Amino acid sequence: MKLLEKRIVKDGLALGTEIVKVDSFLNHQIDIEFILHLGREFQMLFGASGVNKILTMESSGISIAMATAMAYGNIPVLFAKKAKPNTMVEDVYQARVKSFTKGVESIAFVSRKFLSAADRVLIIDDFLAHGEAACGMVDIVRQAGAELIGVGAVIEKEFQGGGTRLRAMGVELHSLACISKIENGWIHFKYED
Amino acid sequence: MKLLEKRIVKDGLALGTEIVKVDSFLNHQIDIEFILHLGREFQMLFGASGVNKILTMESSGISIAMATAMAYGNIPVLFAKKAKPNTMVEDVYQARVKSFTKGVESIAFVSRKFLSAADRVLIIDDFLAHGEAACGMVDIVRQAGAELIGVGAVIEKEFQGGGTRLRAMGVELHSLACISKIENGWIHFKYED
Repeated sequence: MKLLEKRIVKDGLALGTEIVKVDSFLNHQIDIEFILHLGREFQMLFGASGVNKILTMESSGISIAMATAMAYGNIPVLFAKKAKPNTMVEDVYQARVKSFTKGVESIAFVSRKFLSAADRVLIIDDFLAHGEAACGMVDIVRQAGAELIGVGAVIEKEFQGGGTRLRAMGVELHSLACISKIENGWIHFKYED
Repeated sequence: MKLLEKRIVKDGLALGTEIVKVDSFLNHQIDIEFILHLGREFQMLFGASGVNKILTMESSGISIAMATAMAYGNIPVLFAKKAKPNTMVEDVYQARVKSFTKGVESIAFVSRKFLSAADRVLIIDDFLAHGEAACGMVDIVRQAGAELIGVGAVIEKEFQGGGTRLRAMGVELHSLACISKIENGWIHFKYED
């Protein structure tokens, strides 16, 4: 998606060889109009596949999940929690995940009440790096016996292997921007004109 | 707000005397249409006060902050982070906060880049309990020298004192539902017809 690549080049910041910072519009400050546009893009990519629920991971996935849910006519968003609050007293699905940017391993929790074999789930997240969060969510969808429509990531860092991992699992994956390399402060995209 | 009180009674769950669980529509699964309606309600309550930025706390505040930002014509949302990711290398504002439902103390971080004396900030969150998160965000707005328009909470638990604390600080506060007591599985609202 050209518009997103341009925005990453304009407002993003390359840190070392592994990190791209997009906190001015995606995961700290949120540019609402832009995020809503990205949500419509996901809706066009995955199409009318009978999706009835968007699953994401707190926190940075919530805004883009919500934008996608709106593009699908306000279907519910469900966000996995990385810690179990004292209000979560019921049965849960859980999966082990590791945050690349925070360097910690945690467990993602989703209440069983909100995900069942009747659901057709689209997983949406801001980043796809090593695929830890996405694979954890795929695992949760499978535990629920729900149908997985696919995984949508705003930014895929191809060189970290998450995309390869998901495709090897047979998951339909769409990334709105795919970064092939970060080098000397430059961000290289996979599909450059 | 009658509609919200009805929804809390219908779908919420009282746990003990301090907790009301609204994870089916507000802070785990998100009912998008309903949340967008709550956002418009905040916009009506705070009016055309020149708000140019919505500040919230990850994670549960993000969806309602986004809904409010949309009601204000897609102004940016800024969400404070409860841990400092390795991508946050710049100068930050920070404030100590305690999560009531998770029982842990943490530090809220906001990048200095995104908040300055030029901003007119509305703080939006899902719950107002003891006021820890809200006071932390008020502190951050003041550190930035920005103007605080007010604080909006979807659900205030009046008996935990956060509202009293904020009003004593001279903050304009609007809650969409105000719970005065939770007792024997019953949720009592402050303004009952």
